[in-house]
Amino acid sequence: MPTNLQILLDHRPTDKVSPANFRFVETPVPAPGPGQVLVRQTFVSLDPYMRGRLSDAKSYARPQEVGAVMQGGAVGVVEASNNPRFQPGEAVVGMGGWQRYWLSDGGDLRVVDARAIPIQAYLGPVGMPGVTAWYGLNTIIAPKAGETVLVSAATGAVGSVVGQLARAGGARAVGIAGGAEKCAFAVDELGYDACVDHKSPTFAADLKAAVPDGVDGVFENVGGEPFQQALRRLNDFARLAICGLIASYEGAPTALPDMRVFLVRRIKIEGFIVSDHMSLWPQALTELAGHAAAGRLKWRETIREGLEAAPQALVDLLHGENFGKMLVRVD
Amino acid sequence: MPTNLQILLDHRPTDKVSPANFRFVETPVPAPGPGQVLVRQTFVSLDPYMRGRLSDAKSYARPQEVGAVMQGGAVGVVEASNNPRFQPGEAVVGMGGWQRYWLSDGGDLRVVDARAIPIQAYLGPVGMPGVTAWYGLNTIIAPKAGETVLVSAATGAVGSVVGQLARAGGARAVGIAGGAEKCAFAVDELGYDACVDHKSPTFAADLKAAVPDGVDGVFENVGGEPFQQALRRLNDFARLAICGLIASYEGAPTALPDMRVFLVRRIKIEGFIVSDHMSLWPQALTELAGHAAAGRLKWRETIREGLEAAPQALVDLLHGENFGKMLVRVD
Repeated sequence: MPTNLQILLDHRPTDKVSPANFRFVETPVPAPGPGQVLVRQTFVSLDPYMRGRLSDAKSYARPQEVGAVMQGGAVGVVEASNNPRFQPGEAVVGMGGWQRYWLSDGGDLRVVDARAIPIQAYLGPVGMPGVTAWYGLNTIIAPKAGETVLVSAATGAVGSVVGQLARAGGARAVGIAGGAEKCAFAVDELGYDACVDHKSPTFAADLKAAVPDGVDGVFENVGGEPFQQALRRLNDFARLAICGLIASYEGAPTALPDMRVFLVRRIKIEGFIVSDHMSLWPQALTELAGHAAAGRLKWRETIREGLEAAPQALVDLLHGENFGKMLVRVD
Repeated sequence: MPTNLQILLDHRPTDKVSPANFRFVETPVPAPGPGQVLVRQTFVSLDPYMRGRLSDAKSYARPQEVGAVMQGGAVGVVEASNNPRFQPGEAVVGMGGWQRYWLSDGGDLRVVDARAIPIQAYLGPVGMPGVTAWYGLNTIIAPKAGETVLVSAATGAVGSVVGQLARAGGARAVGIAGGAEKCAFAVDELGYDACVDHKSPTFAADLKAAVPDGVDGVFENVGGEPFQQALRRLNDFARLAICGLIASYEGAPTALPDMRVFLVRRIKIEGFIVSDHMSLWPQALTELAGHAAAGRLKWRETIREGLEAAPQALVDLLHGENFGKMLVRVD
């Protein structure tokens, strides 16, 4: 008889998160009660925002509860249903968390089409990361054709979509990524006009050379020193969408050392969280699914095998050891 | 026979600006050539942006030329005209600079109504500073009724208009000013709901107490330490209009020490310069003139006597020694 493996937050990290912050429990597979849906999960999503939820510092989201199943996006298949909106065998996406089986009341569960698009894409380019890219690019940066958009974590789940949407709209897309392999993928597969390796000792000069006309939009996922160099390349009226600052989640804060750049260059910086803008998700997801099904949207995945790999996968994501969307395949 | 006193930039300041950076010359009063207008100036405007133009560092405006008449806004009366758009005796405003007589080609000269409103108001609430207030408040902060707007340099030429427009729109206006006298004026005359003295040793606690519901909009004219305290009071989705950073023009840069506030609170910060938005000036000036003529807009002026006072008046403005709009009356 199958059991439900669940991964709980055992205690909050005081400095860097590690697998020791979590513990595993085996519980019976629950039976759905009235109105409930039992989902057998197939992929669990790892995302940078999770680091913030592990702390109980004031943040935009309620912190993850200690002793509870670690929350997060997941996809799976309906195993049993007492909810008329869901039928056994349907592919679904929701906030199923780090567990093999998820008992949902159907409230935040959505049926998806896993024929034209691989199911795990609903955790990536056709899911929250894709909508994040779509929102920040289209509503904050809103690039005009011919403008230059700089994207950090250029091959990540969010960045890879930003670059392709920017290019599709006629902008010049320049990526920042960690290492030559990621940069080659950014240019050769994702279609970036250029990509600069922030691990290179010549990064600052390389970046300057890659944006000969300056930078009109920045989609910032990382922060840290590469961001400081990006600030030096801004054109007048540049727009900076602050989506993430992963370099600072377990490291030094990312500062803006001299605000006069705001005045001299008339800069706009805006931080955003995609869950504040749920009304735009249907439009964004429709567009992204269309691109993906037509083969116009490419992405890469790092898949770790077995739910037990989730804690280490999160640690590795925070250290940039993923290449593209970080996923765990549930066995 | 009258002569034209002119004040030239003699050499650029290397650190703080002082009157020694300027020199005076007496020249014959020029006669207008074809299409030209001779203006006898009555008030010269002192504005914080002038400090930036004295440096030749890259900025949004061309630097002031060494050896040329110091540029700046001024009002006056048409003395003689060979331009059909201007008649002798008309009140005018333009960029006449620091000189008794200005020979204009009429291109940036505008006739104003100095009957319902004192002529020097066209250098203040019904001029560039007023439009600056109007633009930053209405287009960047766009406060909703009941929201709290924080205004630094609350009694200055720009800030005094921001506070009154914010209140007129139903927002709660809280000022920051230097000293008890300015704060009393902000509340008693300008109608701020509260004003906090940034020179007080209890400033941080006073600010916290003055914004019990947090801050939804910041109209920033100053920067420096008071701005750091303002950052601690931001509500989610706060909008910060960066208009000036006068504390940093001759002092330490104003930094934003931790950009995570952008994410946690979904903050927007935007720097702006009112001359980028000339298409909105007519609407803004019409509204401001209407408020001023009807007595709904109050302001205060510091008037220094004699054109020769202009260099010291600029220095004093940069040190916050003005109370309201800083002007020099041309003798």
